[in-house]
Amino acid sequence: MMDTASKPFLRTDAASFGRTEGGGPNVSSFTLDNGLDVVVIPDHRVPVVTHMIWYRNGSADDPIGQSGIAHFLEHLMFKGTEKHPAGEFSKVVSALGGQENAFTSFDYTAYFQRVAREHLRTMMEFEADRMTKLLLEEAVVGPERDVVLEERRMRVETDPSSQLSEAMAAALFVHHPYGIPIIGWMHEIETLSRENALDYYRRFYTPENAILVVAGDVTPDEVLRLAKDTYGRIEPRGERPVRFRPRDPDPVAARHITVSDPKVEQPTLQRLYLVPSCRTAKERDCYALELLAEVIGGGPTSYLYRKLVLERGIAVNAGAWYMSSSMDETRFCVYAVPSEGVTLQALEEAVDEVLKTVPEALDSDSIERAKTRLVAETIYSTDSQSALARIYGSALAIGETIEDVHRWPGEIEAVVKDDLASAAERYLVLRRSVTGYLQKSAS
Amino acid sequence: MMDTASKPFLRTDAASFGRTEGGGPNVSSFTLDNGLDVVVIPDHRVPVVTHMIWYRNGSADDPIGQSGIAHFLEHLMFKGTEKHPAGEFSKVVSALGGQENAFTSFDYTAYFQRVAREHLRTMMEFEADRMTKLLLEEAVVGPERDVVLEERRMRVETDPSSQLSEAMAAALFVHHPYGIPIIGWMHEIETLSRENALDYYRRFYTPENAILVVAGDVTPDEVLRLAKDTYGRIEPRGERPVRFRPRDPDPVAARHITVSDPKVEQPTLQRLYLVPSCRTAKERDCYALELLAEVIGGGPTSYLYRKLVLERGIAVNAGAWYMSSSMDETRFCVYAVPSEGVTLQALEEAVDEVLKTVPEALDSDSIERAKTRLVAETIYSTDSQSALARIYGSALAIGETIEDVHRWPGEIEAVVKDDLASAAERYLVLRRSVTGYLQKSAS
Repeated sequence: MMDTASKPFLRTDAASFGRTEGGGPNVSSFTLDNGLDVVVIPDHRVPVVTHMIWYRNGSADDPIGQSGIAHFLEHLMFKGTEKHPAGEFSKVVSALGGQENAFTSFDYTAYFQRVAREHLRTMMEFEADRMTKLLLEEAVVGPERDVVLEERRMRVETDPSSQLSEAMAAALFVHHPYGIPIIGWMHEIETLSRENALDYYRRFYTPENAILVVAGDVTPDEVLRLAKDTYGRIEPRGERPVRFRPRDPDPVAARHITVSDPKVEQPTLQRLYLVPSCRTAKERDCYALELLAEVIGGGPTSYLYRKLVLERGIAVNAGAWYMSSSMDETRFCVYAVPSEGVTLQALEEAVDEVLKTVPEALDSDSIERAKTRLVAETIYSTDSQSALARIYGSALAIGETIEDVHRWPGEIEAVVKDDLASAAERYLVLRRSVTGYLQKSAS
Repeated sequence: MMDTASKPFLRTDAASFGRTEGGGPNVSSFTLDNGLDVVVIPDHRVPVVTHMIWYRNGSADDPIGQSGIAHFLEHLMFKGTEKHPAGEFSKVVSALGGQENAFTSFDYTAYFQRVAREHLRTMMEFEADRMTKLLLEEAVVGPERDVVLEERRMRVETDPSSQLSEAMAAALFVHHPYGIPIIGWMHEIETLSRENALDYYRRFYTPENAILVVAGDVTPDEVLRLAKDTYGRIEPRGERPVRFRPRDPDPVAARHITVSDPKVEQPTLQRLYLVPSCRTAKERDCYALELLAEVIGGGPTSYLYRKLVLERGIAVNAGAWYMSSSMDETRFCVYAVPSEGVTLQALEEAVDEVLKTVPEALDSDSIERAKTRLVAETIYSTDSQSALARIYGSALAIGETIEDVHRWPGEIEAVVKDDLASAAERYLVLRRSVTGYLQKSAS
């Protein structure tokens, strides 16, 4: 599956989870001799474990002309090894009463299972086996490509809203591969071959490029022992594969995109701004943007919602989000849904009027409430073992550290009003933006 | 210099030039043992020759993250070899009373000199020498990069019209490198190193990748003998370098781009459509598009000009052009300059109204006049020896043949009204388009 959630994974308020004193749950980490990174997050509430393996490659690492290969390979990873024929791994997970999933994002690919604690070793054996022993027979490649093509047809080709999202991303990222859809362009998926998949697999599926995350009813020693016994037997490749990411030029021009389709039931307005991510931001910009999205667009008490929906009645919904968790420059989104009879042009004007007033309208109460909401939401999300495992796995996969994760709540608390105003003034400017109209056309 | 002419090189009406019977001037072509292609175009009117060497690599072959390297290397080609120190070649050309130039385009890089016929061998010796013997000393790379950076600053960074062009191309070509400027992005030019230049030079500057075009007061035998004696001594590399060009997905959404700048004196409206080039077109589409551009936008008798400028008075200028000569999918442009007091929005609406009427408004008289104009313009352009050399050099560099060049006038003549109407209906549609507004902003 594709990890296309518009919101980034919430970071853990690590200080709160696990109730340990002074910063963070008892997260342990170590690296095996073959370069595989291991993270252990003990959680003894129930006798289950979440076992995840993360690879530091996502769709933005697809070779030019082979868009969709990361996601295609994620599918192919279920197609069997010498030891375990296609489908066996999934059947075993299911027979053990477990759950499994896999996802591909711009920056990483991950596989996970949730099982009773005594089956952890079995999961590790299966997962270690398919890290380097995939068969990738010609007979499975063609039909699986058809599955992916059908997935794209259903999700994108027949969905005007997805078409607008793709076109907006392509316009926002003029050079960077974040402008290419995770699933790939149809005409390139069609050409993906067994050789492409094999080349990609050999390049990226290596112990040096992987991160093992185990959350649940285990101890670090236990995980280390099992990991050495399974993943530890994989030959190292010598070095981690290089990820090459071009940087976009600083944007100079406002861009507009319209998708008109008879299938559109509800017109919507979207606005993307090219902004730094937590990895690329200088100083406190990323925390300021995170809080800014919450203050102006986080739900029905936010500034945009109050102004556009409650006060003016020009929109029936409005909000904002920020995809903070990215290796490279990323998107900040403002969106609004017009009230009956309001044109997208009129709505856009209103949105811009409201956005212009943001720096002055910021008040300390709203900011403090937003901080509380963000941190509370985060604590809530960490109550889920798999959400927690995802927080650490995704952070490490994009080059952040466990310390970065633990620092997050404190950094959010430290943001002040001037940081928000400054971020709004520097980043929410038209020349950095792409505006999208989704509208109904005559059929 | 960069070859950013919006119009493609005009093709020769070969049947007319040289006055030979039955198709084409006496163009000869042959290939040396080391793979170098040679084209000879005799022209005995004056005792001069035009000597050009074309390489089948342009900015669209720049490695990702190294935009501008093709153009940068074009600059570095004047920086000396072991035999001839920096500047010597240019000095010799000048001392011989000759002219020289070089240019980089999306699909090729070319170098040329025009000298008295007795100096042809000297030109060949110099040019053959720098094909593989460039020194590229560290001391020349840094300062020349500064020259290029300054070139970009002067041409693009301070010119809102260039900024709009770059932004529009980036939006039109979501994936294909035609969306990247020939000169490169500033932040990538800044990082181009001697190693990048050397890698690029070794990859593309080879006899297999080059085309020698000699036009002028020479015979094919003479050129063959001289070419063997100079270029023929270069070691072959074994095979031609691979050019990898990703294909763009079929466009689904109309895009708009606005550049507002206090320096803008005259607002303008531009519209680009993604269309086939002569190389990618199926059947007669490319000839139809060529003629369509002429009929609707070729000067003050064209349809757009008549409707928008003469009849409605809403514009002071209007026209269209088509960049037919490209390896991959290319641009068809419609532009208009508003009359005093007319907004770009109003002008765009008017342009779209007029474009909608094109298929029905096409009349045979206009089409025949446009054919005559195109062919006449072509004949006129072939009167220039260097224009003629460019026609053949550029055609071969993008993978066309001498026959394609000779066929062109006949193909244009064969286009009928239905071809034009069909091309307009299929290609001049909003979802294939990017619209640009260049407007004055308060300073």
